[in-house]
Amino acid sequence: MTAGRFSTDVYAQRLQGAAVAAADAGLAGLVITPGYDLRYLIGSRAQTFERLTALVLPASGEPAIVVPRMELASLKESAATELGITVHDWVDGDDPYGMVADVLGGAPAGVAVTDAMPALHLLPLAEVLGVVPVLATEVLRRLRMIKDGAEIDALRKAGAAIDRVHARVPDFLVPGRTEADVAADIAEAIVAEGHSEVAFIIVGSGPHGADPHHECSDRELRPGDIVVVDIGGPYEPGYNSDSTRTYSIGEPSPEVAQRYSVLQRAQRAAVDAVRPGITAEQLDAVARDVLAEAGLAEAFVHRTGHGIGLSVHEEPYIVAGNDLPLAEGMAFSVEPGIYFPGQWGARIEDIVIVTADGAEPVNSRPHELIVVRT
Amino acid sequence: MTAGRFSTDVYAQRLQGAAVAAADAGLAGLVITPGYDLRYLIGSRAQTFERLTALVLPASGEPAIVVPRMELASLKESAATELGITVHDWVDGDDPYGMVADVLGGAPAGVAVTDAMPALHLLPLAEVLGVVPVLATEVLRRLRMIKDGAEIDALRKAGAAIDRVHARVPDFLVPGRTEADVAADIAEAIVAEGHSEVAFIIVGSGPHGADPHHECSDRELRPGDIVVVDIGGPYEPGYNSDSTRTYSIGEPSPEVAQRYSVLQRAQRAAVDAVRPGITAEQLDAVARDVLAEAGLAEAFVHRTGHGIGLSVHEEPYIVAGNDLPLAEGMAFSVEPGIYFPGQWGARIEDIVIVTADGAEPVNSRPHELIVVRT
Repeated sequence: MTAGRFSTDVYAQRLQGAAVAAADAGLAGLVITPGYDLRYLIGSRAQTFERLTALVLPASGEPAIVVPRMELASLKESAATELGITVHDWVDGDDPYGMVADVLGGAPAGVAVTDAMPALHLLPLAEVLGVVPVLATEVLRRLRMIKDGAEIDALRKAGAAIDRVHARVPDFLVPGRTEADVAADIAEAIVAEGHSEVAFIIVGSGPHGADPHHECSDRELRPGDIVVVDIGGPYEPGYNSDSTRTYSIGEPSPEVAQRYSVLQRAQRAAVDAVRPGITAEQLDAVARDVLAEAGLAEAFVHRTGHGIGLSVHEEPYIVAGNDLPLAEGMAFSVEPGIYFPGQWGARIEDIVIVTADGAEPVNSRPHELIVVRT
Repeated sequence: MTAGRFSTDVYAQRLQGAAVAAADAGLAGLVITPGYDLRYLIGSRAQTFERLTALVLPASGEPAIVVPRMELASLKESAATELGITVHDWVDGDDPYGMVADVLGGAPAGVAVTDAMPALHLLPLAEVLGVVPVLATEVLRRLRMIKDGAEIDALRKAGAAIDRVHARVPDFLVPGRTEADVAADIAEAIVAEGHSEVAFIIVGSGPHGADPHHECSDRELRPGDIVVVDIGGPYEPGYNSDSTRTYSIGEPSPEVAQRYSVLQRAQRAAVDAVRPGITAEQLDAVARDVLAEAGLAEAFVHRTGHGIGLSVHEEPYIVAGNDLPLAEGMAFSVEPGIYFPGQWGARIEDIVIVTADGAEPVNSRPHELIVVRT
């Protein structure tokens, strides 16, 4: 259970980048409770409890951490000590929200908070500050979206690990076994292939494949099933894999094969369209247009992708309405899917990293509908 | 993985109680995103994602659920369908916050939100409503704090299960084994004795026992160690156990024995003081005073207890500053502890339920320092 993190200077750079971004946005500072933002900024895996733990990062001035005295140990695995961050510990009866306000220099005009901060802490903080905070997402997302070399390396390793799991999936797909049986095998393989744990496993067979968020069930696989397998997990120091392939138990029908081939073209077209400058919504439209031209617009019920890193779902979201221009170093999924309620579904998903002039997929398993011989 | 829940009429009553409480508080309604409040109100174990799922409960009028279309399946295990709750599903591009406002009848004056709602959803909701919500904690806590018969029965079963685990702990405490080895045995026993999973395991040996939130480590047990073992988990349909006993590997020193006996008196005095009408802070003071009279005030660094139910930590908190009068049906821990940094610590914890004239502990293991023969 070694909790990996990057070297201290990585976090020092991130903290400085976040302070500069906060200043540029005209904010007095950021308040970050446990969650992925805190892990990104100081490598802490502390969890949120009813007692406030918060990194307070003034736009100018020294950062500080407000933490319950009895949870001081939770900072040990983070880079807080090496970074020389001042720690203000508190005990029951103290006012931790006032301590946050003090670090920010009283009741400043603009404060941004991590998107994970629960109402339990956000509302008392707003009252003490006398101002409703804004989301820090905007300020932090450019930092978190653009992966540095070490992060890209971690994503590549995670991608290779989940590819090794997918390579073993056909062996698990035996008629008569349940989705849950297959999921158990996959769970073991995810860890055996190097992930620190399982994040999610979707085994959607037959009609279950038509529900994009189906997980698994006691349904038994049978010949003729189309099976969506969407799996992933974190790879130390915590960067996630996420890859979907669709399997056919025996030869697919001509209709399934034809529709799948459209999906494959849609996924390929979207990956080919990735480059710095294209917007997230434009990229979403690339996949959507291919499916729409083939009469499958209604079958594609979700966005084309989501960013990935410490969190399985993070910015940038590849979705209609998001006019964010993509940039080198961003990492996200390209995962169009088609769903026919009561019948079957299919999805193809790779994680790609935006390069100077295109995309580098971290997954390299074949994209065809993978026929499992019975 | 059967997700247990109570019968539908239990949830119907709770929803009605919550609406009445909201009306009494002058609120237009409640907005409840996934978490323990949602589980309490409709039996849903949905999790929070970046897409909004929310139960909207107007003070007068019909409740509704706003949910991403692709996560509709997450409602299946809840009582939502049997309760006849209207479902407003949405897809990427829709405005789910506007849908919440519509159910509440536009932009009402007072809206309360669950304490678990992340800033990611709370801040956009506040903007659409044109008003900063308040915490629903106050409105829901009387409902959630007062356990009904089925809940008390679940807490008793959980308490008996964790007692069976503690009965086995002395066998695990063998010198030369690490805290992590012991924790692994305990994890297995927690599930074997009927819990659906492990919620937390603290094995704090020797100096580690002086950190109330230490979990476990590779430290090897040795003769003379005092070992704090604080363990628990949910018991279907999800009510938690939480019990601490302190063990001595071999005979304790006279000083340890003397100080432990004060702790035992403090814990006993607090349990004996529980009755309807005493306030949470008065009860906290009972335990604290016993320790202070023996010169151990500084060694007791945390509150006396916390409520328990679906969540391991919930209202009522038995802490200085909380003037809430305790009432029949409340369930909470009574867990004073003493901590001597670098040396050792001890804690005794039972869950008790407030009866008409006292307290019913759900744990019945001996409270003495349990000497493990080596």
